[in-house]
Amino acid sequence: MTGFAPKSGTWREKAAESFARQTAMTTLQAKLVSAEPGDVVIDMPFVSQFAQHHGYMHAGAITTVLDSACGYAAFSLFEDGQSVVTAEFKINFLAPAIGDRFRCIGRVVKPGRTLTICEGRAYAYIGETEKQIALMTATMVPVPEKG
Amino acid sequence: MTGFAPKSGTWREKAAESFARQTAMTTLQAKLVSAEPGDVVIDMPFVSQFAQHHGYMHAGAITTVLDSACGYAAFSLFEDGQSVVTAEFKINFLAPAIGDRFRCIGRVVKPGRTLTICEGRAYAYIGETEKQIALMTATMVPVPEKG
Amino acid sequence: MTGFAPKSGTWREKAAESFARQTAMTTLQAKLVSAEPGDVVIDMPFVSQFAQHHGYMHAGAITTVLDSACGYAAFSLFEDGQSVVTAEFKINFLAPAIGDRFRCIGRVVKPGRTLTICEGRAYAYIGETEKQIALMTATMVPVPEKG
Amino acid sequence: MTGFAPKSGTWREKAAESFARQTAMTTLQAKLVSAEPGDVVIDMPFVSQFAQHHGYMHAGAITTVLDSACGYAAFSLFEDGQSVVTAEFKINFLAPAIGDRFRCIGRVVKPGRTLTICEGRAYAYIGETEKQIALMTATMVPVPEKG
Repeated sequence: MTGFAPKSGTWREKAAESFARQTAMTTLQAKLVSAEPGDVVIDMPFVSQFAQHHGYMHAGAITTVLDSACGYAAFSLFEDGQSVVTAEFKINFLAPAIGDRFRCIGRVVKPGRTLTICEGRAYAYIGETEKQIALMTATMVPVPEKG
Repeated sequence: MTGFAPKSGTWREKAAESFARQTAMTTLQAKLVSAEPGDVVIDMPFVSQFAQHHGYMHAGAITTVLDSACGYAAFSLFEDGQSVVTAEFKINFLAPAIGDRFRCIGRVVKPGRTLTICEGRAYAYIGETEKQIALMTATMVPVPEKG
Repeated sequence: MTGFAPKSGTWREKAAESFARQTAMTTLQAKLVSAEPGDVVIDMPFVSQFAQHHGYMHAGAITTVLDSACGYAAFSLFEDGQSVVTAEFKINFLAPAIGDRFRCIGRVVKPGRTLTICEGRAYAYIGETEKQIALMTATMVPVPEKG
Repeated sequence: MTGFAPKSGTWREKAAESFARQTAMTTLQAKLVSAEPGDVVIDMPFVSQFAQHHGYMHAGAITTVLDSACGYAAFSLFEDGQSVVTAEFKINFLAPAIGDRFRCIGRVVKPGRTLTICEGRAYAYIGETEKQIALMTATMVPVPEKG
């Protein structure tokens, strides 16, 4: 619960539609498990087609999904007719992405008319054991929605 | 040409083997087109299974490949018996990843025993027209190679 | 309270001594108000000799103090004989540094033998009104202490 | 020479005036030595009031000046009536700031109506020996100039 108020009455449906259109999310088997204003959770299993050289999940997969979680968290506070674009992000990897499933949480730290600042946290699970594996900060910007 | 001297006589073979083991690179159809000491180039076509909501290449795909280019650039200067891990990176997106192919270039700015700092640049091509779409800075660290 | 256990029995004294040696902290009138394991708070008034072109506190002053807060947070978990160096940080500015005083909080997110990842938050105060003005993530590394 | 064309005919005077108003630059004895469209150079001596705990120049001083170099590089391409604000930057420190003088170079990588992406490089000099000590990437945004 971030306490931010959405400006659009249809952002949930639009976020779900947008998420469904992303083939990257389908390829990574990512599921949008929760979308609240300024707070989005996306889960992903271990995907063997997206491993790195040690056989663990590629950090790029975690990054992709965490970026999406931050993007939709920002989008949830945008006005109708606005789409979201990532201007930049930084990610610190805290531990290798070893796990059978992963959770990516994106949260808005500071919404804004031009720039929305988000923070993302990624967790790996081996059974019930949770470990934070990444920390992201990101700048999201609104762009006019495509027709 | 970065002017850095490699410490390992087998880094080229090991980088190629490591790259081939990454299913993420196969899934993204990425090809290691050039690997010189401290300077690595990876190409990738537009991959429809890794698109975002507007149908362009997902920024996460560019990020994944650019991270790999920086990682192998750092690896090229490591000692025998060392593998590479990404500690952190930051990426600024300069333009949407619109193109029929992409080039990711990773270069070592400052090698080090503990930390190797790299810079990455990603370019999109529509026919022969080139456009820089991303700028990355990354910290790579050596870890003991797995047996 | 971060729950991290210090390895050095003298880190508090050493942190205070180190802080006192930094003329940058004296110039910025910064005070080390709290130092707990993995959690450091530094306060600073508005310093007219360190303003930017609009007369507000220069973002560089906030950055300098926030970097120090993160650095000492990392240092609190280091072993005896280790000093701290900043490898990198990223800072997002959430609002201009308008205030009569500022608070910089550095916290360890993930300690490590080679890399310690910290998060920093800076707040501006106008009277009793608090506003977060910056968010930092940083990588700190231990180096052998000078003799 | 970046090849970018300025939109304002008075940016040079305005940059010089703005720089002169920054007490932070005076305190750090920083001099604006060159300002070309998208490319700004600021020099600074070793300033004993801004040292860190080992007696070297505080990384925060380098960061402050490098941020300014990037900011004025962005400003040089802005329209009349626009001032510049730093949205975010990341800095990697390549070596300690040991030197008797320092040079900070800010360059525009990608200008834009909303976001201008810059790259900064800081160098330390001991006599004539030059060493790169920092690499920055930054996002600058225009805001309406104050009356």
